Amino acid sequence: MTSELLLPALNAARKGKEEGGIPIGAALFIDGTIVATGHNRRQQLGSVIRHAEMDCLEHAGRLPAGSYSQATMVTTLSPCEMCTGAILLYRIPRVVIGENRNYRGAEDLLLQHGIQVDVLDDPACVLLMEEFMTDYPTLWNEDIGML
Amino acid sequence: MTSELLLPALNAARKGKEEGGIPIGAALFIDGTIVATGHNRRQQLGSVIRHAEMDCLEHAGRLPAGSYSQATMVTTLSPCEMCTGAILLYRIPRVVIGENRNYRGAEDLLLQHGIQVDVLDDPACVLLMEEFMTDYPTLWNEDIGML
Repeated sequence: MTSELLLPALNAARKGKEEGGIPIGAALFIDGTIVATGHNRRQQLGSVIRHAEMDCLEHAGRLPAGSYSQATMVTTLSPCEMCTGAILLYRIPRVVIGENRNYRGAEDLLLQHGIQVDVLDDPACVLLMEEFMTDYPTLWNEDIGML
Repeated sequence: MTSELLLPALNAARKGKEEGGIPIGAALFIDGTIVATGHNRRQQLGSVIRHAEMDCLEHAGRLPAGSYSQATMVTTLSPCEMCTGAILLYRIPRVVIGENRNYRGAEDLLLQHGIQVDVLDDPACVLLMEEFMTDYPTLWNEDIGML
């Protein structure tokens, strides 16, 4: 069963799928309280920067460093270089990843910077992404700069 | 004198200053032709992800990998971790930096990935940023996740 921590991100990913978008979702928690969710909106907004984690940070708005330092970024899929860079910029100390079977982003870079990385290997996240990558390989590869 | 390559990014930075924003600008060239400019819009949009390079990539829109692979990102100031991550994601092979005296971002990460990094040490870029950092230290430190 999907953990409660992961559920808001997974629901955001499913919302993205319903919108015809790439089904990746994220949620930002501060001191255990959820402050924002986001989902990939490449298709919906024609955006190349609105990956789920970026969309989530944007929704959370301008926060002081003292809030980011207490934050956890939860994402359904292993974060790419861009989203990893945003996590590093704002010094978010913990990242919870739904799965990294379908794509493994820049986790090593997170670890090198002392960020706590927890990979949940959640079957619902794996299935959602697996189906999407099978059905829309072109869109997926565009999203990770491969096509 | 500011190089022609740098001028559109510098003009974008100055536009940002006129708007009351953080004076950092960027421009994306593909095969020597400018395709987009952008500038930091933290103040203007209340955005935590619209650094100059991100704003520029967003303005350039959805491009094929074959375009990014011929691209040069020009920026008035050394790119932070987030912007560096976006450059890595899209495999942009060259980054031209107006100056890195006032702030040195994740240039080492760019170099580690084989990206060509040219630092122009442009006096106009240095002065623009120096004045801003002196006049608005709080806003500047927020922008790099320090406050």
